[in-house]
Order: sequence, then structure tokens, then C-alpha cells
Amino acid sequence: MSQAEQELGITERKDVNPGEWYAEVVLKAELADYAPMGGFIVTRPRGYALWERLKRHLDRWFKETGVQNAYFPMFIPDDLLQRERDVIEGFDPEVAWVTRGGHEELETPLAVRPTSESIIAPFMADWIRSHRDLPLLLNQWCSVVRWEATETKPFFRTKEFLWQEGHTAHADEDDAWRETMLRLEQYERLYEDILAMPVLRGRKPPHDKFPGADTTTTVEALMPDGKSVQGGTSHYLGTTFGEAFDITYADENEEQQVAHTASWGVSWRALGALIMTHSDDQGFVAPPRIAPEQVVIVPIWSEETKDDVTSFATTVYEELHEAGIRVELDDRDERNPGFKFNEWELKGVPLRIEIGPNEVAEETVTLVHRPDGEKRSVEVDGLDETVGSELDEIHDKLYEAAAENLEENVRTATSREEILGTIGQHGGYVKSGWCGDERCEEPIKDAIAAEIVLVPLDRDEEPIHDTCAICDEPATETVYFARTY
Amino acid sequence: MSQAEQELGITERKDVNPGEWYAEVVLKAELADYAPMGGFIVTRPRGYALWERLKRHLDRWFKETGVQNAYFPMFIPDDLLQRERDVIEGFDPEVAWVTRGGHEELETPLAVRPTSESIIAPFMADWIRSHRDLPLLLNQWCSVVRWEATETKPFFRTKEFLWQEGHTAHADEDDAWRETMLRLEQYERLYEDILAMPVLRGRKPPHDKFPGADTTTTVEALMPDGKSVQGGTSHYLGTTFGEAFDITYADENEEQQVAHTASWGVSWRALGALIMTHSDDQGFVAPPRIAPEQVVIVPIWSEETKDDVTSFATTVYEELHEAGIRVELDDRDERNPGFKFNEWELKGVPLRIEIGPNEVAEETVTLVHRPDGEKRSVEVDGLDETVGSELDEIHDKLYEAAAENLEENVRTATSREEILGTIGQHGGYVKSGWCGDERCEEPIKDAIAAEIVLVPLDRDEEPIHDTCAICDEPATETVYFARTY
Repeated sequence: MSQAEQELGITERKDVNPGEWYAEVVLKAELADYAPMGGFIVTRPRGYALWERLKRHLDRWFKETGVQNAYFPMFIPDDLLQRERDVIEGFDPEVAWVTRGGHEELETPLAVRPTSESIIAPFMADWIRSHRDLPLLLNQWCSVVRWEATETKPFFRTKEFLWQEGHTAHADEDDAWRETMLRLEQYERLYEDILAMPVLRGRKPPHDKFPGADTTTTVEALMPDGKSVQGGTSHYLGTTFGEAFDITYADENEEQQVAHTASWGVSWRALGALIMTHSDDQGFVAPPRIAPEQVVIVPIWSEETKDDVTSFATTVYEELHEAGIRVELDDRDERNPGFKFNEWELKGVPLRIEIGPNEVAEETVTLVHRPDGEKRSVEVDGLDETVGSELDEIHDKLYEAAAENLEENVRTATSREEILGTIGQHGGYVKSGWCGDERCEEPIKDAIAAEIVLVPLDRDEEPIHDTCAICDEPATETVYFARTY
Repeated sequence: MSQAEQELGITERKDVNPGEWYAEVVLKAELADYAPMGGFIVTRPRGYALWERLKRHLDRWFKETGVQNAYFPMFIPDDLLQRERDVIEGFDPEVAWVTRGGHEELETPLAVRPTSESIIAPFMADWIRSHRDLPLLLNQWCSVVRWEATETKPFFRTKEFLWQEGHTAHADEDDAWRETMLRLEQYERLYEDILAMPVLRGRKPPHDKFPGADTTTTVEALMPDGKSVQGGTSHYLGTTFGEAFDITYADENEEQQVAHTASWGVSWRALGALIMTHSDDQGFVAPPRIAPEQVVIVPIWSEETKDDVTSFATTVYEELHEAGIRVELDDRDERNPGFKFNEWELKGVPLRIEIGPNEVAEETVTLVHRPDGEKRSVEVDGLDETVGSELDEIHDKLYEAAAENLEENVRTATSREEILGTIGQHGGYVKSGWCGDERCEEPIKDAIAAEIVLVPLDRDEEPIHDTCAICDEPATETVYFARTY
């Protein structure tokens, strides 16, 4: 390998410097670049293609279950945000403020939306009159800004990020809670079926709920470095927003009732988790169902065999393309096969097809799985179906590897020392009994920056241990401690 | 009609008060609402569905012709905008400025993007090394902000608007010009094939080009009130941006060359033009290929016939739904058919299917075209195909009506008085000879606020008259004068 080729490749190791390795994968696989202003990134076509595909799946599931997309202004006047601040304890987001329009100072500063509850709720109040207008299921795909002064980590920590935010209104708690769980299940499906990642479902502890929420539910994904990522949240908001913004309706007896609301969101952090989970020291690994290209064909020829190989490869390309498989034929003259292998491995294409004179002679192709290099020769006859099942197999491989990592990294502990020691040594999740008091999280947070990332959804579930691992008072719940992104 | 029903309907007349009528259609057809801040609107689900469908068509055509989507930050640092201001005469957009992040003043104010040339160009410069990296065809779907202090007109004049902006780099003028024209043709196709509107293609006169552009091309649509709407623009930028931002590449001889660039955009103004063109005093009219619902089925029954009619209507619904037609079955008990007719007419559904006991007995349905109320009875057998061709017929009807309006409203004039008189009396376009001097537009602009909206694309085309209608000097081009939105 020449030095130039080496520089194209990944130089950091995932197990040694996971942070540097991650940044290198993102940049060199051309998923994103750093913007000139700290905290912002440019999402390059290969990264944006991942987001578009994620969006297409989720958006279809949303629409199949009654959601309508809309678009609300990107700015929220200070007085509307203030209304939310007044009624909702703990709501005080760090936002970007527009104070000047053209050459004039604005009378009321405008916040760039950090989330849209406060601009959407007044319209819900206006649009909902009768029980017949319920449920109202709105969603928007947009970018939001949170002015947090932390180091930039593409897709994980950026001041501006892309997301979807669902905002729904319902007649009663039952319906709003069904909605909350339906969206959480769709998020789980996104991770498992599309991103090839297992997740844990649960609630956030009361002190870590979304401000104003009755219940915040979450899907959490374990990263290879032992930290947990909050992969998506779905909030049952009770009547907090209904009361604050007068979202009421006439029920079947013409009596005014306050609507129950829910909100739910997934951001491009899902892409960060995806990149972090599956990629390796050769670069990005894209699970087949979200990969911009699922298959790359690399022809291998000498001067004498070039025509035959190229013609055979082109036929294979056309067959797969027509079958709806996202396939590239890398027929560049100026690059040798080794260079191409490296480049496509870096870019994460899950399945490589090699075609040389032997393959042409035998009417076969050689398939190579990106995640583990597994290689097999298959007949060209019926290749579209073969490739379809190989892609499913690669999806399953990726999922299994992540599931194994998760399974091995859920441990239990019965004391403060054991929690600290276990997370300190292994990372991952530690389950223990908890009394329900936020103060019992503090010593863990202070010592190793781990926190309670979830509690079981079922409120009636018996806690794993009888007593709280920290204070020894009776336990009311099981908690999962972990370090987080 | 009860008073309540009357209030649901449109009260203004299109031919008497087009401005008020337009606003009423937008609000009552639930396409958009005014936001609490002047200059901003909320795009409601029915309005956003139009945008999503427009986007889906254009986006597919873009991708089929090599375009890749990306996402660049919504903020542009002042110094980058300054770089554009320094090199490009006339570039000084009125923008919204973020000056505070959290509780701190920013060192460099950030402009909310008014357009993204200045943030995209430096990355193009970075990503393009060799002629093999060209062309680079980028596009983003996003919102932009222009701080213009004019009255809000939903989709036509808003401080924030949704659009797509394509930014492309090419090896030479030929390739960049091909790109410019390809996108203009796709915009024309959008208007004609999807929005059922004829457009005129042309160039903007030199004094009305996009700042820095070599050539700005446009598609213009004539509104029923006689004003022209700029429906989409595609700019050949020459090497202006290439030079200003060092977008260079090594050609096949390893020599550095400056890239030629192009940019092109369509905004949600296309929706405004659509609503304005086809709608009428009963409300919105959605052309079938962009309509959120293409067909609404309204069952008409008495107590005795309810079961039969409902079951027949449900079968029809299922057949059309399975055939991929966007169909609604309005089986609400609490509303009578007349109310439903009015409501769906207001909402613009292009084809209504009425099903009563007679239709059930005869195995027929009654079809009613939204634009002109044309009514016919057709057999239920093969209804999916019948509906498909009826929808095409409605599209053609709408297109023909708009084409007729356009055809009748392109006139010629040979003097200043004639231009003023003709536009004053009829609106529409007036063609005349032009010497090429911007000063010959001024008297028309000053007197009746009409301007040169386009000149023919073909630079070698002979002018329509030998002399300029204003100054009587020799004419070099034909110009189209019109009032504009």
C-alpha cells in the first residue's frame, strides 16, 4: 500500500481511540464535514442518503398510522417560549436568538426553534373544536438548534441537528398513551429492522423526563465503547400542554374537556449510533437496508480479458439494478482492484461482487461480505435472489454482533461500590434496585459520570432487588445505570 | 344554506377581490394559517401534502439526472457572506441575524441562510480536485429566510419559505449551460405535467439577473389577475463563484482550471401560483397529480337504503384504493350530502363520486368534475381505469383553461403609450422591441409597476420589432413586459 493509499484509509483504531476513530470514519467515508462555525456540520451526500432512507421508512410507518406532516415556522417569538417557561418547570433551553432583521433591531427577539411545542400548541388549540377533530396527529421533519457549548461530534453533538418531531392531541389518557407507545415501537422497529441494532425500551426516571411530561419513554442503544445512546424518545405529556395552551374540545355531551397530548422524536443521532456500532478499522459499515449502495461490482481483468469481464459485469449490474437492488459497477480504468476494494470498504458498501476471468468462464460471481470478509462463489443464475438473501444475512450478522455485545453487557449490582466497579471496568448497563430518590443517582454520577438511563416500562414490575443499591431503603424499581453520549 | 355553512364557504369573489379571495381560499381550504409573527405562515397538513408531492416529483427527476442531496448549515457566518459581498456586485440580501447564543453575545453574527452559495462554495472547492470529480451536482431541500418588509401573502410573500436549491460545478461552460437548461426544463415539466399550468421560458434581462450570474433563466406563469409569477429560476454563474471561492480542478493534462457553476431553485411560491390559477369562488381546485385526495366518494342514502349504499360505496372505495388512487370515503353520519359536496369542493378534490340507491341498482356511479361540475354516469365495472382517465381529463381541462388565458394575454406594442395602455387595460404580457438599456424599463415601472419579466432564450433570435418601443433606438431583443408578484 502506498502512502497516499494509507492516508485514504482509517489510521485510528476503534478499540484504542474510539473518539478519534469515529471522527475519522465520518470524514473519510465522506458522511460529513465540519462547518466553519464550531458546533455545526455539513452533511455530505453519502451521509444525507442515510438520513433520507431512515426518513423514508419512518415517514411511511407514520403515515400508515394516521400521521400528517406539516411545517411550522423555524422561529418562535420570545413571548410564546415564555408562556412555556412560565408553566413548565425546568424548561429553559439554550437557544440561538435572532435579534436583528435586515438592518433593524427586532422588538421581540425570535428563538430559532429548539423544539416546537410552544409554536404548535396554540394552533392545535385553534384547530381542535370537537371530539371529532381528535386524535390530531402532526409531525414535521426539520432542523432544530440548541446552543450547547460542547465539543462537536458529528451526528451526536451539534448545535443544529435534523430530526422529526411528532405532536399529537387525544381525547384521553388511554389514547395518548397508546400513541406514545406506538411511536416508541416504531422507533424500536427502525433500530432493529433497518439499522440492525438491538435497543432496550424503557422509561426515563422522573427526574430525567422531558420538562412538562407525565412520562418520557426511550429506546437506548449500547455502543461498542460501553456507553448508552438515547436513540429516540416518546413523551406522554398528560394535560400539561393542554392546560397551558387551552387545547380543549367538546366531548360527545358537548362538554369542554382538556386534550391529552404526546410528542415524540428521532434525530440524526440515530446515524451516529449506526456508524459507531457497525463500523470497524477499515471504515464505515452500512447495514444493507439503509446503505446508499448495497452492492458494488468490481471487475478484475487483464488486457486480454477486459472485454469479456466488462461485458459479463455489465450484464450482472443490469440484472441487479432492474431487480431494484442499489448497485454500483466500479469500472474505473485508472484504479486497480485492490484500491477499489479498500475504497468501497471504507465507504461501507455491505456486499462486494468480484468478477474476473474465472467467474466469466464458470458463470459464477464471488461475493464478499463487508462486515467479516466472508467470501463465497455463487452461480450467476438467479443472482438477484441470491443477493437479496445475502443482504438479509449481512443484516442479521450485524444485528447479532450488536445483540451479543448488548447481552454480554447487562450486569447487576447490589451496592454502590459494585455499580462503580462494574461500569468502571466493563462499561455497559448495570441493573440494580432503586428507592426512587434522585439523590441516590448522584454518587454514581459524581464518581464515574454514569446515570440512570432507564427504568422498566411496566410500573407494576417487581424490582430486581429488595433494597436500593445506594441507600439500602426498600427498592421500588429496577434501574439501568450506564455512561451516556 | 345555513349561516354556519355560509361561513365555511368562500365569501370573496376571485374576479372582484383577487387578493382577499386568495387569502380566504388558503385559510378555509386549510392549506395554511398566519403565524403569530408577521411574515410567517404555518403550513397545514393539506398544504404541506402539496409540497411533499411536488418535492417527490422534482426530487425523482433530479436523482434520475445525477443530483445528490446534501444538507448544509442553516447559519452562515458574516465573514463568508462578506466574501460574497466583496466579489459580487449587488449581493446584499436582507437577512435575519443571530447575535446571541444562550445567554452570550456571539463574536461573529450568523446570518440565517437567504440562499446557500457562500456556505456551499467553499466545500465544493474542497471536494473537487480533479476533472474526475466533475460534474458535482448538489441539491438541498430546506427553508430560507429573507427579511423583506412586505405584506404577508401565503406561499407568495413570506419571510421564511421552503425551497430546493441546486448548486453544481462543471468543467466548462458547455456542461454548466446544459445543466442550467436541464433544470429549467424540469421546472417547466413540473408546471405543465404536474401543476397543470403552462409557462413561458426565457432569460431575465441583464439588469435583473441573480447577482454574480452570467445568465438567469426563468419559467414565468401568468395568473388570472394578469400578473406574472416567476415560477423557478436556473442560473448559469460562469466562473464568478469559481474564482471567488477557488473552485478549481486539475484537467486531463494536470493543469488547474476554474470550474463553471450553476444554481437553480423552486420555492413553495409554485403552490401559490397553483392555488391562484385553478381555484374558484367555491374554493381550492387541486390538479389531480398533486391533489392530496384525488377522489372523494359521497354516499347518498335514506334509512332504508343506508346498508346497501354503504356496502356498495365501501367496495368502490376498496377497489380504487387498491388501484393506487388517493381516495376518501366520506361516510360521516352527522353531515348531509350537500354539506359534504361543499366541503370537498372547498378543499379542492378534483373528482367526486356520488353513490345513491339508483347507482347501486344500476351498478353505476356518478362522477362529478370539480373544475366545471361536469357530471356523468359510468359503469362500476372497470372503475379504476375509468377514474384514471377522468383524472387525466381533469388535468387537461385545467391546463387548457390556463393555456387559453395565457394565449389570450400575450399582446404586442410598439410604443410606450401602447405598453402602458395594454397592460393597464388587460394585464398579461406585452411583447415589444427593446434596445437593451435598463433605462427604457423605468418609465413603464414608474407608471404601472410593470417590468421586463423575460427575454427569449435564443440570443440570436431577431427582435419582434426593429426599434425599441420606448426610445426608438434599434432593438436588439424582444422583451415581455408584465406586472409581477
